[in-house]
Amino acid sequence: MITGNKALLAEKGAEIFELAAAVNVPVFFEAAVAGGIPIIKSIREGFIGNHLQSIHAILNGTSNYILSRMTEAGIDFPEALQEAQANGYAEADPTLDINGWDAAHKAIILASLAYGFWVDSRLVHVEGIEKVSAADIRFSQDLGYRIKLVATIRANSNSSIEVRVNPTLVPQGHVLASVNGVFNALMVRGDIVGDTLFYGRGAGQDPTASAVISDLAQAAIWIDSGGKAFGFTPHGLYGKCLPIDELVSGFYLRLTVDDRPGVLAQVAGILGTHDIGISSVIQPETHDATAVPLVLMIHNAPFGRMRAALEEIKRLACVKGPPILLWILS
Amino acid sequence: MITGNKALLAEKGAEIFELAAAVNVPVFFEAAVAGGIPIIKSIREGFIGNHLQSIHAILNGTSNYILSRMTEAGIDFPEALQEAQANGYAEADPTLDINGWDAAHKAIILASLAYGFWVDSRLVHVEGIEKVSAADIRFSQDLGYRIKLVATIRANSNSSIEVRVNPTLVPQGHVLASVNGVFNALMVRGDIVGDTLFYGRGAGQDPTASAVISDLAQAAIWIDSGGKAFGFTPHGLYGKCLPIDELVSGFYLRLTVDDRPGVLAQVAGILGTHDIGISSVIQPETHDATAVPLVLMIHNAPFGRMRAALEEIKRLACVKGPPILLWILS
Repeated sequence: MITGNKALLAEKGAEIFELAAAVNVPVFFEAAVAGGIPIIKSIREGFIGNHLQSIHAILNGTSNYILSRMTEAGIDFPEALQEAQANGYAEADPTLDINGWDAAHKAIILASLAYGFWVDSRLVHVEGIEKVSAADIRFSQDLGYRIKLVATIRANSNSSIEVRVNPTLVPQGHVLASVNGVFNALMVRGDIVGDTLFYGRGAGQDPTASAVISDLAQAAIWIDSGGKAFGFTPHGLYGKCLPIDELVSGFYLRLTVDDRPGVLAQVAGILGTHDIGISSVIQPETHDATAVPLVLMIHNAPFGRMRAALEEIKRLACVKGPPILLWILS
Repeated sequence: MITGNKALLAEKGAEIFELAAAVNVPVFFEAAVAGGIPIIKSIREGFIGNHLQSIHAILNGTSNYILSRMTEAGIDFPEALQEAQANGYAEADPTLDINGWDAAHKAIILASLAYGFWVDSRLVHVEGIEKVSAADIRFSQDLGYRIKLVATIRANSNSSIEVRVNPTLVPQGHVLASVNGVFNALMVRGDIVGDTLFYGRGAGQDPTASAVISDLAQAAIWIDSGGKAFGFTPHGLYGKCLPIDELVSGFYLRLTVDDRPGVLAQVAGILGTHDIGISSVIQPETHDATAVPLVLMIHNAPFGRMRAALEEIKRLACVKGPPILLWILS
């Protein structure tokens, strides 16, 4: 069986591999993740001697194109999306691309291969790029970051792993920061091989064809040799995803607040009671005298604690409109 | 058979694969090129549906470390080599690393896989990094380039290919320009998949172990399935290397000349008679009043014509010391 259907594998991978093994049919799916980049083969076979510590990846070309255009042209999300659609880089219904789920399906497949159990999609934390504004991109740049939709897959202690997809602040010197346009990239860290990077076109008819042909060739060898299906073998070293609230990260928090003294003290006070540290604060210039942006960079903290603090901050009288919370690459 | 011996494969690949096929033994050699980066598997299997148009690669960590240090610290080759040896990044006898032949052995293996015939090492043009000076690195930077030891492997018309390794001026915006230190990188262009990049540690005990374990696993599957040796199958689409003199490239030419009028006219005159065009000229400031550097950027020209012109230029009375000729990435 050869498939490029990432949603099917992400949601029904366990059943598919079980059925396939029962009838000794191998399943090949190179086209499901990152187009023509041979990442499935590399993880399944090339890195078989490694314990993979983490995968950080840009897996959705449409999102990356939109964020790249927002960064280059200083335009907001709706305009960049329209432009992407006009240029054929976004579909008429781009929902799964921009809400993060296309990337999440691919991340689930990668995580399942890397950690030997089928990841339950309900435990994957997914955020899309709709909430990212031109202002966030500008402020992030001032702080030395680019915003990318990054899939983070990582082994934690206690046989649990972390799988999430969100708009992420990537330090400008990091290799993923310079992946622009419709390209995909994956940074794979193995305990033996160290850091490796794979880069290429992640979608489109031709890269997908390249992957499918590679699968066809492997299937032909398999048939010719009369081999056993090398399917998906749960190895039991890992078995669960960390609850979202336990995921630890640095954060970028942008609030819209009254332009008067004492606001920062109130916000910092709430963060303090939740034991959350602030690494820097910027209050960019603005032309609107009544409501101004306040950007806080937050030290590593569990998402759950951050979320609880945010609920209280939202209720402050001096805070106007919804806060924007973005994750920092870790 | 599993081997990481690149010199053996590069020099005796044809015989090894012939013998192995005769006794139905597969040959695996992931560790021979680019350490833990699964590039052999990717070319042999992942890109099997592609006609590979070119591979540009940084394949020798020692050379890349030395050039990186020369660029960062502005030091000359002998000092950077000493530093590399002191830090364990160069062996006591670094000959094959710095004269380009370690990279050339890897390039021969890649070219043979990509183009389906065993490349004769005598037809490969190899230059090392010994001749690159801190001045060349500085002048190249002013012109917008980094100097890297690049292996160029490319299909040409008439079923012939180009294989060479030389210190190469890489445009600063090109992805290979930012590969620093002991890292390896390969940019593979396929007709279907487009441009892809692979990056990682190219040498050392651990990345090599990662590659060997991957080969062991593949060998185990092969034994288990009782398969046929998938060895090296010449496909006859290509069959020869272009003679060195027919390779076409842009060039960087640094001369040391008398500081007096008319020198450029003489040099340009000789290049003109060989139908070689100049794209730019810089005459950097210097403290030595008698002999000054003259740097010329040369439009695409066959190496043979460039070499003939250089012979005449060397004989000019106004030209002091040996000219330095470097290739520009193409």
